[in-house]
Amino acid sequence: MAHIGTNENAQAASPSLPKPDVLSPDCPSRAILQHVTSRWGTLVLIVLDAKVLRFSDLKRRIGGVSDRMLAQTLQVLEADGLILRHAFDVVPPHVEYRLTPLGAEVSNRVLSLASLIEANLPQFLSQRPKRPAAAQTVR
Amino acid sequence: MAHIGTNENAQAASPSLPKPDVLSPDCPSRAILQHVTSRWGTLVLIVLDAKVLRFSDLKRRIGGVSDRMLAQTLQVLEADGLILRHAFDVVPPHVEYRLTPLGAEVSNRVLSLASLIEANLPQFLSQRPKRPAAAQTVR
Repeated sequence: MAHIGTNENAQAASPSLPKPDVLSPDCPSRAILQHVTSRWGTLVLIVLDAKVLRFSDLKRRIGGVSDRMLAQTLQVLEADGLILRHAFDVVPPHVEYRLTPLGAEVSNRVLSLASLIEANLPQFLSQRPKRPAAAQTVR
Repeated sequence: MAHIGTNENAQAASPSLPKPDVLSPDCPSRAILQHVTSRWGTLVLIVLDAKVLRFSDLKRRIGGVSDRMLAQTLQVLEADGLILRHAFDVVPPHVEYRLTPLGAEVSNRVLSLASLIEANLPQFLSQRPKRPAAAQTVR
């Protein structure tokens, strides 16, 4: 994505790697973009914004997510270094999740996208034509 | 997502609708967020940034997308009012795609997210632990 021109850090840190490019199917940046824009990844990042939350808090706030999908999403975001998981050694188990500094930056951009959509929802709905059912399920 | 506080337009335009909230499974804003963060939707919005492109241009720039998925993604984003499709009445067919003003705003936020990830790719890769294979396929 040469037209963005914000890859200076990447270039400086890893001169031997090709320039990161989400448009290239082999670039690991594409996989990370897909983790943070995944169905539930997006909402986890939004909900964790500046908060420390337990699994049950996350589940309650993110309407519709299953235990399994939430656990899997948290695992992926933790592996990417976007969230921290802290398990207290107590009974019953007590596990907390929070954003890392990099996760907070990513969360901020995701929030910015979501709030734009929320703020313009009436415009989206007003211009929506009758859509074929098949076109509504791309993911 | 009451903590963001950018829903004034939505409230003004549709006083009878509940406040848009992507965290609510029934809010149409969640579906739109999922369209713009879909696997290929994200990349289409990035590639169309300030450009007019033909289907074949889009396909060439977005590594790995199939004709079918690209066509379906374009249909969804067009239905949401984010892109304009213009078919010229010529043989062979000539179809162009561009962003609407709202699409340009959304594209801008998606670009900002993607460029943050590209710029920090070395950090992502350096802190990545050995991950269980199952954790890499959330979508």
